[in-house]
Amino acid sequence: MPDYSPTPVQKFTFGLWTVGNRGADPFGSATREHKTPAELVYLLGEVGAYGVNFHDNDLIPIDATPAEAEAIKKDFRKALSDTGLVVPMATTNLFSDPIFKDGAFTSNDPKVRAYALQKTMKAMDLGVEFGAKIYVFWGGREGTETDSSKSAVGAIQRSREAMNFLCEYALDQKYDLKFALEAKPNEPRGDIYNPTTGHMLAFIATLDHPEMVGVNPEVAHEHMAGINFMHGVAQAWEAGKLFHIDLNDQYPGRYDQDLRFGSRDVKAAFYLVKFLEDVEYEGSRHFDAHAYRTEDFCGVKDFARGCMRTYMILREKAAQFNADPEVQSILAEINAADPAMTPFFGKYSPEKAAALKAQPFDRAAISQRGLKYERLDQLTIDILTGTR
Amino acid sequence: MPDYSPTPVQKFTFGLWTVGNRGADPFGSATREHKTPAELVYLLGEVGAYGVNFHDNDLIPIDATPAEAEAIKKDFRKALSDTGLVVPMATTNLFSDPIFKDGAFTSNDPKVRAYALQKTMKAMDLGVEFGAKIYVFWGGREGTETDSSKSAVGAIQRSREAMNFLCEYALDQKYDLKFALEAKPNEPRGDIYNPTTGHMLAFIATLDHPEMVGVNPEVAHEHMAGINFMHGVAQAWEAGKLFHIDLNDQYPGRYDQDLRFGSRDVKAAFYLVKFLEDVEYEGSRHFDAHAYRTEDFCGVKDFARGCMRTYMILREKAAQFNADPEVQSILAEINAADPAMTPFFGKYSPEKAAALKAQPFDRAAISQRGLKYERLDQLTIDILTGTR
Amino acid sequence: MPDYSPTPVQKFTFGLWTVGNRGADPFGSATREHKTPAELVYLLGEVGAYGVNFHDNDLIPIDATPAEAEAIKKDFRKALSDTGLVVPMATTNLFSDPIFKDGAFTSNDPKVRAYALQKTMKAMDLGVEFGAKIYVFWGGREGTETDSSKSAVGAIQRSREAMNFLCEYALDQKYDLKFALEAKPNEPRGDIYNPTTGHMLAFIATLDHPEMVGVNPEVAHEHMAGINFMHGVAQAWEAGKLFHIDLNDQYPGRYDQDLRFGSRDVKAAFYLVKFLEDVEYEGSRHFDAHAYRTEDFCGVKDFARGCMRTYMILREKAAQFNADPEVQSILAEINAADPAMTPFFGKYSPEKAAALKAQPFDRAAISQRGLKYERLDQLTIDILTGTR
Amino acid sequence: MPDYSPTPVQKFTFGLWTVGNRGADPFGSATREHKTPAELVYLLGEVGAYGVNFHDNDLIPIDATPAEAEAIKKDFRKALSDTGLVVPMATTNLFSDPIFKDGAFTSNDPKVRAYALQKTMKAMDLGVEFGAKIYVFWGGREGTETDSSKSAVGAIQRSREAMNFLCEYALDQKYDLKFALEAKPNEPRGDIYNPTTGHMLAFIATLDHPEMVGVNPEVAHEHMAGINFMHGVAQAWEAGKLFHIDLNDQYPGRYDQDLRFGSRDVKAAFYLVKFLEDVEYEGSRHFDAHAYRTEDFCGVKDFARGCMRTYMILREKAAQFNADPEVQSILAEINAADPAMTPFFGKYSPEKAAALKAQPFDRAAISQRGLKYERLDQLTIDILTGTR
Repeated sequence: MPDYSPTPVQKFTFGLWTVGNRGADPFGSATREHKTPAELVYLLGEVGAYGVNFHDNDLIPIDATPAEAEAIKKDFRKALSDTGLVVPMATTNLFSDPIFKDGAFTSNDPKVRAYALQKTMKAMDLGVEFGAKIYVFWGGREGTETDSSKSAVGAIQRSREAMNFLCEYALDQKYDLKFALEAKPNEPRGDIYNPTTGHMLAFIATLDHPEMVGVNPEVAHEHMAGINFMHGVAQAWEAGKLFHIDLNDQYPGRYDQDLRFGSRDVKAAFYLVKFLEDVEYEGSRHFDAHAYRTEDFCGVKDFARGCMRTYMILREKAAQFNADPEVQSILAEINAADPAMTPFFGKYSPEKAAALKAQPFDRAAISQRGLKYERLDQLTIDILTGTR
Repeated sequence: MPDYSPTPVQKFTFGLWTVGNRGADPFGSATREHKTPAELVYLLGEVGAYGVNFHDNDLIPIDATPAEAEAIKKDFRKALSDTGLVVPMATTNLFSDPIFKDGAFTSNDPKVRAYALQKTMKAMDLGVEFGAKIYVFWGGREGTETDSSKSAVGAIQRSREAMNFLCEYALDQKYDLKFALEAKPNEPRGDIYNPTTGHMLAFIATLDHPEMVGVNPEVAHEHMAGINFMHGVAQAWEAGKLFHIDLNDQYPGRYDQDLRFGSRDVKAAFYLVKFLEDVEYEGSRHFDAHAYRTEDFCGVKDFARGCMRTYMILREKAAQFNADPEVQSILAEINAADPAMTPFFGKYSPEKAAALKAQPFDRAAISQRGLKYERLDQLTIDILTGTR
Repeated sequence: MPDYSPTPVQKFTFGLWTVGNRGADPFGSATREHKTPAELVYLLGEVGAYGVNFHDNDLIPIDATPAEAEAIKKDFRKALSDTGLVVPMATTNLFSDPIFKDGAFTSNDPKVRAYALQKTMKAMDLGVEFGAKIYVFWGGREGTETDSSKSAVGAIQRSREAMNFLCEYALDQKYDLKFALEAKPNEPRGDIYNPTTGHMLAFIATLDHPEMVGVNPEVAHEHMAGINFMHGVAQAWEAGKLFHIDLNDQYPGRYDQDLRFGSRDVKAAFYLVKFLEDVEYEGSRHFDAHAYRTEDFCGVKDFARGCMRTYMILREKAAQFNADPEVQSILAEINAADPAMTPFFGKYSPEKAAALKAQPFDRAAISQRGLKYERLDQLTIDILTGTR
Repeated sequence: MPDYSPTPVQKFTFGLWTVGNRGADPFGSATREHKTPAELVYLLGEVGAYGVNFHDNDLIPIDATPAEAEAIKKDFRKALSDTGLVVPMATTNLFSDPIFKDGAFTSNDPKVRAYALQKTMKAMDLGVEFGAKIYVFWGGREGTETDSSKSAVGAIQRSREAMNFLCEYALDQKYDLKFALEAKPNEPRGDIYNPTTGHMLAFIATLDHPEMVGVNPEVAHEHMAGINFMHGVAQAWEAGKLFHIDLNDQYPGRYDQDLRFGSRDVKAAFYLVKFLEDVEYEGSRHFDAHAYRTEDFCGVKDFARGCMRTYMILREKAAQFNADPEVQSILAEINAADPAMTPFFGKYSPEKAAALKAQPFDRAAISQRGLKYERLDQLTIDILTGTR
């Protein structure tokens, strides 16, 4: 067997909040003790991660004094140095503090909106201080439980104004930063604005600096809405907007589970890995997940190792799929070009339209061709299960 | 009681396929007889509709001879003239015929893609012949059951090429047409590309003629994914892309139900109607729904009348909400401007950023304010139930 | 307008954990301060509730000393006496403490299973001390994230053994208690055993004392699975098993929202209230919900008042539906008996079977009858919206 | 590689309607031609199936003359004899004909209810004629779109009366038949009564002859509601009620997909196969699925072979899981008995209760143990992917 150990090529990263997750949930308290950021870096170094990401308050508690902050940063910097881990991404916690109970950039309260801007600028400074090149925005509280409370159009406008402001701030500071926006349909709010990666891409197109802003799609968030994750990633990629990605797993139509990557929907994970490898995605593969609440820190390491191992397994299977003669023979057959049709495609011309309108088609004959997709899918299952 | 009869202001329209729906489903055959397009126009006239929309093959069967087509068109034209109904929108059926079993514009088979273009051009001609100004695209078969079968990036590119071609065709023909793209997450395909209105808006931004192309959001399609429909409509509106809308109802996480408007999720329907009326949306209110399979054509009329009646009821309730002193008092209070914060908003400047970074915020004090959303929502329920 | 104030007839109750909910969620900390059980009783008295229910640890913290427990009980008893509130139901918290991280009665660890029994016996004692006649079991942690970890058959058997033991304990103590089991499909576990009221009813039928054990269906829990709540309540009622009910609201396919009763799915709430009133359900109407996180304690009172008010509104609408001549005329027509068919129903006999097998049926004629359900449903919407 | 060919031990069966499915759906017409029952039997023989099941009208069209029926039966019988296939199960089509548009046994129309009984008796005769020992009931139309139309309690009572009648009919005819009831939450009705296997088990407990009646759980139907299928199967098995099973696959929260077994949720399929093999389930493994609409009859055979192959693959993986030393070591550790606790389990006694109430528990110590479920689940993924 190959060993499927992580290599730096895949840029496997974890958030401090992932391996540091203490297992609290709405119905129960923490099952794991607190670890310092530095301790978590050593843990990630031990399991073979490439990098570590953070929210501002993962690193520096919201009420820390300047001296406390410096001490934490010093320890964290040492841990990075000792382990060789890098910080490719940072983000702002705009959801935990009660001040954000009705949103940050979309809050009805101007004080909250102003504070959210302030907090983000400072968190950007902190991220850049540690070398982050990607800055993620997840607006977990930007939504409603009752649409009587907030204007949906107003919320979009407030979000846009905030993003435009922060883009300018990054430019003004000469930060080498790109923004990656992360969508989620619900939880912790009843409905969150820009609920999918598609909505985020559409929103980005309306910004002042769309070239600075891309997306950070998350498996669990799209699965919550029962949407094909790989399709959304492909749309982002094709638009040049796949700046970051959050890998985990999730059963549809449920609370946010943040399960170990590839642990629940193996087939969806396979298509995702295949896509990222086929297009030679060069960004971080960031695992935004956490260990089951049943685990201690040995289990947390099992979890982290499992995320990376499953990615490496699926990467090898994608290569096998691409090399499989029967798979490729079917794909070639069903994608065969038809020289008689070629003149009808490409750029429009009146002559082309006229010729196409005059072209006879034998609908019945075309329809009768079997497409061999059951065979193709069974070959996929065989490859996935290692039985081919 | 007001009578809540439809008036032309709302431009209530129905598709031929809606009142003509025969009640067949995957588990049972038709329960209602076939009606001709002309008969359906008279039915719609009787219930007070403003207009009627069609797929090419709703009007002209796919295998009709030219003579049959002319006869049908003649009868249809007479019915329109007799009833005063107009045809604001038309669309192409790119899903029923077996030739489209693996998609139309995204089929792997070049013959199918070419035929889909041909069929759409001809259907556009037909729609324009009857006065349609909006041309809807619903790519019901543009998807996959297994992602082994098709390239997601290739599918986006094929879709874009087709849309660009057809925009040019409309321009070349000097058609006064705008395109409205309709998203759906799944059914009849396992996963359909561009699954939500958000994805469609993002796709449109990548076209050669984005100014010609907007969206046609459908209540049921977004509810299938459990997404807040009004939020998506608001995003489309704010982007100037709400060219058409499909009204119906749907319980989340199910087969496409196409229920009578407002019959399932009364509260969501209220916020939608309120939004459309508040922003003074001027397009058609199109009901893309059908009567329960238990109904005869009397029931079909009950269904059609009910769609319009419920819209008119909710429209009045929206006005009541906007006029309610307690509601407005709460809204004013929670949206109050804060002069101390005003300098921090609007266009970025380095000075503004610096001032904002230096501004102290009393997080605890800001957080403690109760926002009165439970009261506001209960007032909404009171208005909805007519108990206020 | 009627005032829709609560009356004791409906036995409106709230859990201490509902009005005492502090607004913490997986992504944010508490937004409301702690209130003592006694304070919460006074709050409930103020809004007009009939009773208050508790988990053992809502009243007595898990680490309280005996003296602390006595002091709390004393204050609580006084508040009950001052307000006239009663305690119709009590239950055990078998989910918050980390010891239950892999279940209580179904934990793989015998120590945890034994402790869960002990904790429940003591909590039963406490509930009975305050007069509870219904004892609820919600096994929030009885499930799995990975089915590699636990035997599904073993879990059923462990649950049964625990329930049988605790029934015997109640009998042995001569407690006047009935048990009400509450189902939930997921959250906080990936999958919870006995995920719906249906599964619970089936489980109860296998117990040693099924006559002591019924169900406590909760709106939100069944809506999470997209299941018609009223249908499940009807099945429980028809089986004589509707011992208690948890009223709240929830959008399908999401995290557990515990929204104000009737605030999200007004139509489903209507059918539920209509059912409970039609069958003259005599148990508590317990609201297992909490105020939005945006609210302070004024908002909590708005929330509690709203739950009861909406119930009273819907109760009046149910009476209106039952008295509406057109509604009743349609119902009479579609439910008309057919004397020719009567001999075929009721108890089996060979003669009846033979006669029925020989009976001709005109399928087409029977099928063609329209059932007027669109009209009936529109009348329902009219009644619900107060426009009839 | 092992060849994973089907063997008779697993009793792999297919319905005539599965391999005979013509690919029609709500948005498109048939893509495959009609095959006679006999032709389908030969097809199933060719792919290695053990048996074939049918609805009455799969075999004999509802309008067939007696002579036509005899001819069809003759051909079918010959095909069975030629291929060696058996007919272990039969069922009634109570959903396709328009007469059932508002239900069969629960229709408000007494004529429909009587006809449904008649049709079922005749279909039972037909099933028994071909040797069926299991008789399935799927009440696809037993539900509502609007709960204004039907009494939920009345529907349960009508269903019960029908089942009691039909049990007596089977006994009276001395048929060696068991009934297996199949649940589904929705589609084709808005809500179907007895939406899950749990509800069906509860319903069965209220029948006159519960010993004759079990369940026929279907993967897709429970996945539609997002429920753990294996848990429901385990509950049925433990209650002695797993009389039949319908294998296929389905993504949650969608239209009924009836995908090739194991093709969508490989992990859920693994746990299901493991369960059936571990408990040595001896009934048919019936595939209630159909080929993608893109397929011709070669694809239909690929589909059928794939269902069986994937079962055989997962069966081998279940054996590997059971034999894996690390897996078994973890399972042994986490399930270790604790002699100190043993006295507290089993049958209740007052002494046992008293002792247990007095027993001290160190909650913190018990909680801190890590349960190794992440490791266990990763081992499962490794086994599933063939990388261990």
